[in-house]
Amino acid sequence: MSCEARLAEKLSELKLELPPPAEPKGVYKPLAMAGKLVYTSGHLPVRPDGTLVTGRVGAELDVQAGYRAAQLVGLGILSTLRKRFESLDNVVRLVKLFGAVNCTPDFIQQPAVINGCSELFAHVFGPENGVAARSAIGTSALPLGVPVEIEAIFEVG
Amino acid sequence: MSCEARLAEKLSELKLELPPPAEPKGVYKPLAMAGKLVYTSGHLPVRPDGTLVTGRVGAELDVQAGYRAAQLVGLGILSTLRKRFESLDNVVRLVKLFGAVNCTPDFIQQPAVINGCSELFAHVFGPENGVAARSAIGTSALPLGVPVEIEAIFEVG
Amino acid sequence: MSCEARLAEKLSELKLELPPPAEPKGVYKPLAMAGKLVYTSGHLPVRPDGTLVTGRVGAELDVQAGYRAAQLVGLGILSTLRKRFESLDNVVRLVKLFGAVNCTPDFIQQPAVINGCSELFAHVFGPENGVAARSAIGTSALPLGVPVEIEAIFEVG
Repeated sequence: MSCEARLAEKLSELKLELPPPAEPKGVYKPLAMAGKLVYTSGHLPVRPDGTLVTGRVGAELDVQAGYRAAQLVGLGILSTLRKRFESLDNVVRLVKLFGAVNCTPDFIQQPAVINGCSELFAHVFGPENGVAARSAIGTSALPLGVPVEIEAIFEVG
Repeated sequence: MSCEARLAEKLSELKLELPPPAEPKGVYKPLAMAGKLVYTSGHLPVRPDGTLVTGRVGAELDVQAGYRAAQLVGLGILSTLRKRFESLDNVVRLVKLFGAVNCTPDFIQQPAVINGCSELFAHVFGPENGVAARSAIGTSALPLGVPVEIEAIFEVG
Repeated sequence: MSCEARLAEKLSELKLELPPPAEPKGVYKPLAMAGKLVYTSGHLPVRPDGTLVTGRVGAELDVQAGYRAAQLVGLGILSTLRKRFESLDNVVRLVKLFGAVNCTPDFIQQPAVINGCSELFAHVFGPENGVAARSAIGTSALPLGVPVEIEAIFEVG
């Protein structure tokens, strides 16, 4: 089964559409390449209708809401990749994820939040190519008040 | 026009001189190479006289002061690059920026702060080679109390 | 003297054993490769008995305790590398470190904390190959309440 087919399957299961590709909030590009590596910019949780999820995990949002926001970030990254490479099947594998969770100081389940993105990528790219190195940190503030921001490094063919 | 000429033009416009190359605050080097990629250490906002800008965005500093601090960080990165590669014209392009803004929890304009560095690089390296992938996050504390810390990946020839 | 011998020397001096290799707290791998580069996941401070160091620097922990936690993180990264590459002597050099310190907002000595890891790597891999680019930031929250999380990029042969 292709990555595109697995994404279609996942979107159907989640009753979601892919959000629009990221629009930079400053002077940067959604992704940049160096050799076979693709560096994505930090992506925010954008709903399919283009609106942003906002709020802090541990306050306005609970872990499950944070997980779903991270899933939206992942879908946004896939949208950015597909815009650039036409098909996700041109992506060889995920190399690295870095996720920052906007949370209260006592919140310690950042990995459970970022899993929303990681499980999506594991589904779409498979358990070998879609699972990679990762860091998850908490923080006190993120752009536009979003609960989670994630950047990724992928390898392309 | 060369990168060096565009930098000279920018410094003249800003009435600034390039700050001294970064001196590590711990056990690290200002930059390290892997193949054609140059990884810079996180740079802090150093004024041309060697003093650091300190303060938190949203409290002691406003967005514009944060922007100018990020511009100083960018100048410091250029100073580090020039020390190592003699001329900025030996740098092919920017690949990735990561910026952390020391700010109050309600501050959400991190991208506008990091633009201080990004717009400098876009001017010096040009709109294609000087604009790349980027993440901007907020945080609650940075080394020595600075408002912004930025690390970069560049490609050299 | 080999890296393995220098590590054995350091462990003897510290009266420590190498902690067990990292077990992912989410959907990721302890490390991933891209060409000759090894990206490690963010590692947490694990004691040789497998328990985690927790607490915030500037509150429950002082700088020295933070330094020792960062040293444990470094040992954990070495444990992960050794599990994958059999011997640390197969690692060519450190390229980049990124460290986040869970600290109070007024704490500004993040570099002194991350030095716990950096000085270990400088000892094991040597002052040229074990010292690289680095960023250290403070933050308000980390997974499982640990005081420090560090990710690294290494080059292998």
